[in-house]
Amino acid sequence: MPSYTGPVKDMQFVLHDVLNITETGIPGYDELDADFTNAVLEEASKIASDVLAPLNPVGDTEGCVLENGVVRTPTGFKAAFDQVREGGWTALDCDPDFGGQGLPYLMSTAVGEMMSAGNMAFNMYAGLTHGAYSAIHAHGSDQQKETYLEKMVSCEWTGTMNLTEPHCGTDLGLMRTKAAPQEDGTYKISGQKIFISAGDHDMSDNVIHLVLGKIVGGPEGIKGVSLFIVPKYLVNDDGSLGERNGVSVGKIEEKMGIHGNSTCVMNYDEATGYLLGAEHKGMRAMFTMMNEARLGVGLQGYAQAEVAYQNALEYAKDRLQGRDVTGAKYPEKSADPLIVHPDIRRNLMDQKSFVEGARAFTFWGAHMIDKAHRNEDADADGMISLLTPVIKGFLTDKGFEMATNAQQVYGGHGYIEEWGMSQFARDARIAMIYEGANGVQALDLVGRKLAQDGGKHVMAFFEMVKTFCKENSDVDGMAEFIEPLKAASKDLQAAGMYFMQNGMKNPNNALSGSYDFMHLFGHVCLGLMWARMGKAALEALANGASDTEFYETKIATGKYYMARQLPATSMHLSRIESGADTVMALEAANF
Amino acid sequence: MPSYTGPVKDMQFVLHDVLNITETGIPGYDELDADFTNAVLEEASKIASDVLAPLNPVGDTEGCVLENGVVRTPTGFKAAFDQVREGGWTALDCDPDFGGQGLPYLMSTAVGEMMSAGNMAFNMYAGLTHGAYSAIHAHGSDQQKETYLEKMVSCEWTGTMNLTEPHCGTDLGLMRTKAAPQEDGTYKISGQKIFISAGDHDMSDNVIHLVLGKIVGGPEGIKGVSLFIVPKYLVNDDGSLGERNGVSVGKIEEKMGIHGNSTCVMNYDEATGYLLGAEHKGMRAMFTMMNEARLGVGLQGYAQAEVAYQNALEYAKDRLQGRDVTGAKYPEKSADPLIVHPDIRRNLMDQKSFVEGARAFTFWGAHMIDKAHRNEDADADGMISLLTPVIKGFLTDKGFEMATNAQQVYGGHGYIEEWGMSQFARDARIAMIYEGANGVQALDLVGRKLAQDGGKHVMAFFEMVKTFCKENSDVDGMAEFIEPLKAASKDLQAAGMYFMQNGMKNPNNALSGSYDFMHLFGHVCLGLMWARMGKAALEALANGASDTEFYETKIATGKYYMARQLPATSMHLSRIESGADTVMALEAANF
Repeated sequence: MPSYTGPVKDMQFVLHDVLNITETGIPGYDELDADFTNAVLEEASKIASDVLAPLNPVGDTEGCVLENGVVRTPTGFKAAFDQVREGGWTALDCDPDFGGQGLPYLMSTAVGEMMSAGNMAFNMYAGLTHGAYSAIHAHGSDQQKETYLEKMVSCEWTGTMNLTEPHCGTDLGLMRTKAAPQEDGTYKISGQKIFISAGDHDMSDNVIHLVLGKIVGGPEGIKGVSLFIVPKYLVNDDGSLGERNGVSVGKIEEKMGIHGNSTCVMNYDEATGYLLGAEHKGMRAMFTMMNEARLGVGLQGYAQAEVAYQNALEYAKDRLQGRDVTGAKYPEKSADPLIVHPDIRRNLMDQKSFVEGARAFTFWGAHMIDKAHRNEDADADGMISLLTPVIKGFLTDKGFEMATNAQQVYGGHGYIEEWGMSQFARDARIAMIYEGANGVQALDLVGRKLAQDGGKHVMAFFEMVKTFCKENSDVDGMAEFIEPLKAASKDLQAAGMYFMQNGMKNPNNALSGSYDFMHLFGHVCLGLMWARMGKAALEALANGASDTEFYETKIATGKYYMARQLPATSMHLSRIESGADTVMALEAANF
Repeated sequence: MPSYTGPVKDMQFVLHDVLNITETGIPGYDELDADFTNAVLEEASKIASDVLAPLNPVGDTEGCVLENGVVRTPTGFKAAFDQVREGGWTALDCDPDFGGQGLPYLMSTAVGEMMSAGNMAFNMYAGLTHGAYSAIHAHGSDQQKETYLEKMVSCEWTGTMNLTEPHCGTDLGLMRTKAAPQEDGTYKISGQKIFISAGDHDMSDNVIHLVLGKIVGGPEGIKGVSLFIVPKYLVNDDGSLGERNGVSVGKIEEKMGIHGNSTCVMNYDEATGYLLGAEHKGMRAMFTMMNEARLGVGLQGYAQAEVAYQNALEYAKDRLQGRDVTGAKYPEKSADPLIVHPDIRRNLMDQKSFVEGARAFTFWGAHMIDKAHRNEDADADGMISLLTPVIKGFLTDKGFEMATNAQQVYGGHGYIEEWGMSQFARDARIAMIYEGANGVQALDLVGRKLAQDGGKHVMAFFEMVKTFCKENSDVDGMAEFIEPLKAASKDLQAAGMYFMQNGMKNPNNALSGSYDFMHLFGHVCLGLMWARMGKAALEALANGASDTEFYETKIATGKYYMARQLPATSMHLSRIESGADTVMALEAANF
C-alpha cells in the first residue's frame, strides 16, 4: 500500500527561507514564526499520513454508493471526517466570528497540500464546503451568514457548487435552471445540475448547495444568472433542521478517479432557494472565489505528483533490477536498486524539481492572496489574478504528467491497482478538467488577464524577474539559475510581443498559442521560484546552516530544473510564433 | 457510447501513394494492389466497428472473472472471437503450411491497427497467440510445429508469453522459475509468472504457454535461461487434448485498463514443459520476435489515440459551447460547436497529425520487416532494429498523451466513464509499460542500437533524410516540410555527436539523455513521414487527382506537424547536451 509523509521541512524552507513570511508585514503573518508553522504542519502531516492516506485506496475501491436516495461514503470516511472537523482543520483560515481560527490563507494552503496528497477525494468534501463558505461570507446577508456559516466552518454542514448542466459547462449562459420568485422573497429552483462534487453523502447533517440559475423573466444569457442557497434540509428560525427541500440525487457518476468523492447528478424540483448576493449577479459572486478555488485545484495537481513521487522514490530505492552501468553499486546483492539508473533518476528528478517548484509557486500565490485581502493590495490582487490560470493550468497538466511518470517507475506494478500508483494518476487527471478546463485557463490568461489593467500586471511580472536577475547575476553560484531564467523570460516576453503584434489583426493568432503560452509562463514562474530557492539555499549555507545536505540538495534540484525543464520555453515560443495559419487551416468537415 | 470507423482511405494513402508497395519488389507485395488492400481493409473495418468496438466498454466494465479456477471473459467476447477466427483474421500473415494466408506482415499490421483501435483488450488474445506462434515457427522442431501451429493460426488454441516474475521484469537474469530435466526429454517446470496477458480464458480449447525458466544445473543469470512450451492441456500423439498440465491461475490482476484481457498470475507446479529451441538460448528465441512484438505495441499506442481522436472530433463538431471569437459561425444556434475554438483545434490537430504520422511510420516499419524477412535484406533488418525502440517508445508515450488530450476535449464528460474517453486513456497507458518499459526502449536505442554494426544503420538513416531533403528542397510546396526536417535532423545528429564525444568518458552522459533522444528521434521520423506524405499529396494533386480536398488536407496536416511539433527537437537536444551532471548530482539518500 502506498504511504505519505508531509514534506514539512520543504514547506518550512519555502515559508521561512524563501518567502520570509514573518517579515512581509501582512496582518496575521507576524504570528507565523517557524516554531508555530512547524507545529501546525507536523500535526497536519500526522493526520494526512495516519488517517487520510490509509483511506485513499479504500475510497478508490469502494467508491460512493447511492442506496434508496441516500449516498453512502466509503468505509472509514465518516470517522475520519469527524476527526478532521473536531481537530479544527476545516476552520483554519475561516472568520473567527463564525468559529474559524483566522489564520492566513497561506497556512490553509500548506495544510491543504498535505490533506490533498493524503486523500484527494476525501479532502474535496471540506474543500467544496470552504468554497461555499467563502461565497456566503462574501455575498451573504447577515442573516444568511448567521444561519449557515458556523455550521459550515465546522463542517457539520457541508457545501457544494452547482454550475454545470448536461448541455453546458464552460458556456454557462446556456443554463436552463430556473428560479421562480415567490411572494415571501424566496425562489422555487427547478433544473438539473451535473458533476456536483460532494453533492450528497452521509458525513454531515445538512448539505448547503450553492446553485446558479436564471430568475424567470430576467435577462437572456449569462447576464441573467443568479446564485442561490439551496439547503438539503431547510433551516428553522432557531437553527434546527426543518423539512427536506426539493433537491435529490439523480445518480452518482462512474468516474476515472476520485471515487471516494460523490460526484452527483442533482435534481432540483421546485426546491426552496435563497438569493445570494444581487439579482443577475451570480457570475460575479462565483468569480470572487475563483482565484482561491483555482489555486486550490493547482495545488491538487502537484499534491498528487508529490505523493506519487514519494512512493516512486521508495520503490526506486528498494527494487533491485539491473546494474549501475559504471559498475555494480551493491555487488553483494543480486542487483542494484533502480535508482542507480540514469533514466530512472531523470524521471525522479523531473518529478522532484517540478513538485518543489510548484509548491513554492503555489505558496507564493497564496501569500499574494493574503496580501491582496489583508493589506487590500491591488497590485497583489492583480498579480495573483494574472497568475491564477498559470497555477491552475500548468500545475495540473504537469501534476498529472508527473504522477504518470511516477507510475512508470514501477513498470508493470504501476499499472495494477494493488500498488496505488494508478490511483494517483487517475485522481490527478480531474484537476486538468474541473474548475475551468485547462484550455479555458489558457483562454482566460491570454484573452483576459494579459491585458487586464492595461497590461500592468504582466509588465510588473517581467520587471520582477528582471530586477531579480539584475540583483543576482554577480552572486556566486547563481549563474546557473540566472542565465536560464533570463533566456526563458525573454521567450515569454517575445511571445507576449507576438500576441500584441498579431492578435489585433486576428485574435486566432493569440488564441492558437494560448495553451503554449500558459506552459511557457509556468516554466518561467517555476524557474523564478527555483532561482529564489537557489538563492535562499546559498544564503543559508553562507550563514553557516548546519543542515548543509538539505540546502545543497535544493541547489542541485534547482539546477536540474533550470538545465532540463526550462529549455521547454523556446519550443513553446516556436509554436506560438507559428501563428494561427496551420491551426485554423482545415474546414471542420475536412478533419 | 464511443464509435470507431477504420481509416481505410488514410491507410490506402500510406500504402499506395507514399510507400508504393506494389513497386517495392518484395515477394508477395505484387498482389497488394489498391483494390485488394481496399477490400481487405474495408472488411476489417466492418469487424472492428460493428463487432469489436461495441464490446470495448463491455470488456472494461465487466472485466475478466476467475471462478473456481476458470477465467470467464466478458459477455460477447467468445462469440466475437469465434467470428474473428472464422473470418481468418488471426491467420493473415501466417505460414500457409499451417493454415495461414501468407500475406505480408504489413497487411496484418494495417488490419491490426483497426482491431486494436476497436478493442485493444480483445485483440490482445490473438496478438499474444501470434507472438507464441512466431516463436514456435522460428525455433520449434518439426514435431512441435506439427503439434501446435495449425491450432494457433486458427486461434482454436491461444498462446501466452511468460517472462516476468514478482521480483524481476526487466532484469530476467534474476529469474527463479526452474526446469528439471526428465528422462523422457521433457522438463518439469516450477515457478510463478506474473502479468501474463491472456493467461487463461474461456474462448479457446487450449492455452499454449511459452515460459522462460532456468534448467537446473545450468549457468547462472541470463545465460542460463531457456524457453519452454507448456500447454494447459497436454496434447496426445493424435493431436487430441490429453490431461490437464500442472499450470493454474493464481489470480487475475486488477488493472488501470485493458480489463477485457485476463492478466494472470500463473503458477507452474511441476508442469510438463518442452524445450523450444536450444538449451540456455531462451532469450535469443524471445528476441527474434522482439521487433514485431514491439512494433505491435507501438501500434496499440497510436491506435488508441486514433479511436480517441475520432470520438473527440465528433464531440467537437457536435457540442455547442461558446462563440467563435471572430464572429458567430452558427448565429441561428444557441452557441457554436467546440471546433470553432482555436485551442480545441490545436488539440485536435496535435492528435490528427500525430496519428497519421505514426501510422505512416509504423507501416513503413512493417514494410521493412517484410523486406528483411522476404528479401533477406540485412540493411532493412538493421534499420528496423534501430527504429523499433523509437516506434515502441515514442508512439506509446505520444499515443497515451493524445488519448488524454482527446479526453480533454470532452471536459467533465471525458472524466466520467459513460462516454468511453477515460477507457481509451487507461487502456493506452499499458503500452508505455509492457514489452519493455519505455525507459528500457530508450536504453536499448542509445546503449545498443546506435552503435550496432558500427553505427551503420543510424548513418544510413541520416543519409536517407539528407537525400530526401536534397532531392526535394526545390520542389514547389515542399519548403515548409524540408526546412523543419533539416533542422530537426540536425538536432538529432548533434545529439548523436554529443553521445559519441561524451558517452565514452562517462556512459551516464549518454544514458541521462536516452529518453530525450528517443523522443527527438521519434519527431524526426514523423517529420520525415510527413515530408514524404506531403510530397505524395503534392504529386497526386499535380497528377490531377479528383479528391483534391483529401490531399490538401494531408498537406495542411503535415504543415501543422512541421510547424507545431518539430520544434520539440531543439528542447530535447538542450536537455541531452546538459549531460549527466544535474541528473546524477544527488546521493540516493538525498532525494
